[in-house]
Amino acid sequence: MSKKGLAKGKSGKKYTITEEQQGEYHYVYGPYATPVIHVEPGAIIVAETHDAFEGKIKKTTDKPSKILNFPYLNPQNGPIYVEGARKGDTLAVYIKSIKPRGKQPVGTTCLIKNFGGLVGTADTAILNAPLPERVKKLVIDKKGVHWSKKLILPYEPFIGTIGTSPEIEAITSLQPDYYGGNMDVPDVATNTVIYLPVNKEGAYLYLGDCHAAQGDGELCGVAIEHPTTTTIQVDLIKGWTIANPRLENERFYMSIGSGRPMEDATRRAYKDLINWMVADWGYDKLEAYFLLTQCGRVRLGNMVDPKYSMGASISKSIISKR
Amino acid sequence: MSKKGLAKGKSGKKYTITEEQQGEYHYVYGPYATPVIHVEPGAIIVAETHDAFEGKIKKTTDKPSKILNFPYLNPQNGPIYVEGARKGDTLAVYIKSIKPRGKQPVGTTCLIKNFGGLVGTADTAILNAPLPERVKKLVIDKKGVHWSKKLILPYEPFIGTIGTSPEIEAITSLQPDYYGGNMDVPDVATNTVIYLPVNKEGAYLYLGDCHAAQGDGELCGVAIEHPTTTTIQVDLIKGWTIANPRLENERFYMSIGSGRPMEDATRRAYKDLINWMVADWGYDKLEAYFLLTQCGRVRLGNMVDPKYSMGASISKSIISKR
Amino acid sequence: MSKKGLAKGKSGKKYTITEEQQGEYHYVYGPYATPVIHVEPGAIIVAETHDAFEGKIKKTTDKPSKILNFPYLNPQNGPIYVEGARKGDTLAVYIKSIKPRGKQPVGTTCLIKNFGGLVGTADTAILNAPLPERVKKLVIDKKGVHWSKKLILPYEPFIGTIGTSPEIEAITSLQPDYYGGNMDVPDVATNTVIYLPVNKEGAYLYLGDCHAAQGDGELCGVAIEHPTTTTIQVDLIKGWTIANPRLENERFYMSIGSGRPMEDATRRAYKDLINWMVADWGYDKLEAYFLLTQCGRVRLGNMVDPKYSMGASISKSIISKR
Amino acid sequence: MSKKGLAKGKSGKKYTITEEQQGEYHYVYGPYATPVIHVEPGAIIVAETHDAFEGKIKKTTDKPSKILNFPYLNPQNGPIYVEGARKGDTLAVYIKSIKPRGKQPVGTTCLIKNFGGLVGTADTAILNAPLPERVKKLVIDKKGVHWSKKLILPYEPFIGTIGTSPEIEAITSLQPDYYGGNMDVPDVATNTVIYLPVNKEGAYLYLGDCHAAQGDGELCGVAIEHPTTTTIQVDLIKGWTIANPRLENERFYMSIGSGRPMEDATRRAYKDLINWMVADWGYDKLEAYFLLTQCGRVRLGNMVDPKYSMGASISKSIISKR
Repeated sequence: MSKKGLAKGKSGKKYTITEEQQGEYHYVYGPYATPVIHVEPGAIIVAETHDAFEGKIKKTTDKPSKILNFPYLNPQNGPIYVEGARKGDTLAVYIKSIKPRGKQPVGTTCLIKNFGGLVGTADTAILNAPLPERVKKLVIDKKGVHWSKKLILPYEPFIGTIGTSPEIEAITSLQPDYYGGNMDVPDVATNTVIYLPVNKEGAYLYLGDCHAAQGDGELCGVAIEHPTTTTIQVDLIKGWTIANPRLENERFYMSIGSGRPMEDATRRAYKDLINWMVADWGYDKLEAYFLLTQCGRVRLGNMVDPKYSMGASISKSIISKR
Repeated sequence: MSKKGLAKGKSGKKYTITEEQQGEYHYVYGPYATPVIHVEPGAIIVAETHDAFEGKIKKTTDKPSKILNFPYLNPQNGPIYVEGARKGDTLAVYIKSIKPRGKQPVGTTCLIKNFGGLVGTADTAILNAPLPERVKKLVIDKKGVHWSKKLILPYEPFIGTIGTSPEIEAITSLQPDYYGGNMDVPDVATNTVIYLPVNKEGAYLYLGDCHAAQGDGELCGVAIEHPTTTTIQVDLIKGWTIANPRLENERFYMSIGSGRPMEDATRRAYKDLINWMVADWGYDKLEAYFLLTQCGRVRLGNMVDPKYSMGASISKSIISKR
Repeated sequence: MSKKGLAKGKSGKKYTITEEQQGEYHYVYGPYATPVIHVEPGAIIVAETHDAFEGKIKKTTDKPSKILNFPYLNPQNGPIYVEGARKGDTLAVYIKSIKPRGKQPVGTTCLIKNFGGLVGTADTAILNAPLPERVKKLVIDKKGVHWSKKLILPYEPFIGTIGTSPEIEAITSLQPDYYGGNMDVPDVATNTVIYLPVNKEGAYLYLGDCHAAQGDGELCGVAIEHPTTTTIQVDLIKGWTIANPRLENERFYMSIGSGRPMEDATRRAYKDLINWMVADWGYDKLEAYFLLTQCGRVRLGNMVDPKYSMGASISKSIISKR
Repeated sequence: MSKKGLAKGKSGKKYTITEEQQGEYHYVYGPYATPVIHVEPGAIIVAETHDAFEGKIKKTTDKPSKILNFPYLNPQNGPIYVEGARKGDTLAVYIKSIKPRGKQPVGTTCLIKNFGGLVGTADTAILNAPLPERVKKLVIDKKGVHWSKKLILPYEPFIGTIGTSPEIEAITSLQPDYYGGNMDVPDVATNTVIYLPVNKEGAYLYLGDCHAAQGDGELCGVAIEHPTTTTIQVDLIKGWTIANPRLENERFYMSIGSGRPMEDATRRAYKDLINWMVADWGYDKLEAYFLLTQCGRVRLGNMVDPKYSMGASISKSIISKR
């Protein structure tokens, strides 16, 4: 947990956001909702997240296009009001644990009409006929994610969608941007601190959409979705203003850029990482650019959302050797 | 005016939205604001629009980056609540007149740091130093737009930003999308009907950002901005559901697609135009695709906003000859 | 015809390139072919161009995917060796006339599998099933292009593919770039001068792929293709080095940018037009950027080739009023 | 080494391509050059590769823009004529070793004007002033790549540019595409087999541009370039026709897609990987798409070349569990 925050790494009061407490989940990242809880920096929050379909896809014969009702998708817990947070500050959210919740088969994935990375979509509008829909329900247990009788994928859970509210916009939870949102970057996993810019008083933190496993790019647009009990600790860093979500874990520092086309997402990520190296490690801007050319790492989050997400990172073992 | 609407081309009651009535202008297209007026289909509305900077850029020595305060940009009149409008209907907005308003020089344009079509931006994030800022104030009178002593550009006003509210999102008025918004397509001019999808009860129509002149693409991001008195007539077409803004004038039918990269904006525009040809003129889908290959016209609205806008059109003299 | 050229607008010797003289047509723009003729600046050349399919698509029941044999597509006349042309010079090619050639129905268009602006392609690789193929053969006569019994499109012929050889590359004639090639910009029509950069000794001018009519974007990828007798006059401007194809007609100056995504094509076009305004009319760079924002015009050539083409232009009546 | 090849994993005759034997290096991937050697499937080839600048950047005060002479960049060894190779076959090139060659400091990297991932370029044409140029010369020894006194990066050499000739095109060695070329994917390293499509008789294999270290995306456009002695073994797989370069190592199978925008490169890579899974492991197409969503991995090669490169891969431990 970040030592730079107000809580100085100490755990504060513990809060829960059960399904009951949450009541209506949210489908936009915005300032117009009423906070479900108010917390102080250091607070530990245990949230019952829904899967991206709010549990409505129950069996393999379900037709996603008939069940799903845009824009009521990707339900989010929150908003969480963080006391003391003001525009220009940054939240540091430490992800303590993510655990599957509910009855087996607890995992869901599906092919949705006109949605995905290798099909025509509302944006990449084409005349070809859509692919057929498919639904898969999967048991997730200690062994992992049971894809088939022969194949068990490792359980590698992360938070697909997490972020703060924009100042005056309210944006679909299907989209990622500078405030976080639907980034689908698998590194937003346990034992990670994600930094999120505060755009309005109280920050209004939202989260949801936890994935049990996901490949780079979330190719068909639907990872192994599952409801969880997710525990985070929220801290507040006063006066640290950031332009993109950033994260750190034991191995690296990462900045996450979102945009279209994909090169713009990558540019945003790398440029912000350079800015971070300049501000916090004293790099010369061009030296940072030069060095990342030789050792930067890139991870594709999603290639399916209204904006694509890319994480650009540098190893902790390198960054300090300036 | 569309005969398909409830008003059958008849003018209804006349409304005004003066600066005073408007009070606070809006910076998002969303459902969370309180309507400034409620009108019936057929209503004529005379709106006092601000320029995109709310009149804050007053002289050529002003520094836009110091005066402008994102996201409080591109102020919009509205929302206008249209009685009887429900999700799935379409507004038909006839643009009757656009007239400059206020003291000379009434026109403003400027170069804004890290904004524009030929510079690095927040999205196309680069390390090059930004261009210098510049401001130009211009007299607009009967002769036209006074660019310099030698050059007077024709006064060709249009509405840069117009649209309905999304269902639950509230999106910056700097962005265009399926609901309209900041399209900056010069064909949204007088003697034109623009069709806008209704996404929520009452439609919540917004408008503003009138331009006195603009090139294709709005290259530096700022056209000849000016405050106006704009008169529109609003009609409602029940049960006509459209996916993109569309428009018609005496010469052609156009669909406007917004997206990134620019080819996606163009694809959205052309595909929707095909859908229109199929639904309303009985074209076979592939025949429409085939024909537009030979006679479709494309107009670039903006190449500077969070999404680019493209209008794809077909001549009225061609479309009827099926 | 350009007065800047060596020929000073005077017509020189007349040459023909009949089908017989041409012998094998070319499918790349490159320096490795043997010139079919050598000409002096001022020369008039009458070329018998093939249609893009070399006449192989003869009837509406033909299957393009069975007949067409990539990369042997879009056959080109040439190369024409221009005496005195050296790297760093520019060709000025005046298009005198384009006339249909051959037996009726002389026009061909078709839908080709996995090719076009609204379908998946080799680049925009998707899993959706391809559209069916279609072929249309059309009579082209004095009345125009006979699309159907009811619809005759105007005959508006232009050269789809024209350019010089790169220095050491040999690039498919399906692609446009800085040297010209398959731009498919309808303004490359009669009474126009197109300027093309000389990249190697002799320039090696190629041309072909004339269209009888085409919409902006050449949506399905195939315009009204037809064999022609095309007459051009070739002049040479020594020491004028250009980065993109440019053209002028009675009304405007245009620069043509090619690239992907489409915004990059547009950026190339507009930036080169600014450079032209600076170099030849004395504009300040930022003033040109500023002015084009208000009056620039953009025309989409193709949205289907390996690179898209965009023409950015400014009216002659405006550019001179500095 | 691939058992599918004609050589069945057995090493054949050993060849060298020294600087002397090579004579003139090549700057295009094309069929117009004369093969430097003819080899049989199974042959082992030891090539002396140049760095991307042909050794012309010698000291840190050199100005790349003055020394480098486009298009004479990225010199390639070859072409190597592979006996028996015909269009529709595939080369399997096993990379045995890559060793630095020449006098210290043997490594070179630099910032080149208007070239790179976070600057304006010829394609992403903007008006901002270029960044300053910089050159860095680096010792590469057993300890690694000496970036600074404090920082030694691991020596992780790979072949930046390798591929076969197109059928009739000759394309700059700065560009990657379906035939390989300048992919800059760090997985093209030792103990890897890269598969390359044969497009013309003899295959015409080229290689060069070895990197001592490189980050994902090759951000500024220039990795740690160095001359090497590179040893490969070339095998030929008759009748196996592939659309993209592919590779395998001990851990995974990868397909490499190149294109613009970056999402198109990614689509090409993932789609080809699906085709591979279908053809060689019997996957249903949609099942492969579905599974890669959960476990596919993506690696960004370059984000600076005329086309970007992306590798999409699947673990060997997963693919076989169908």
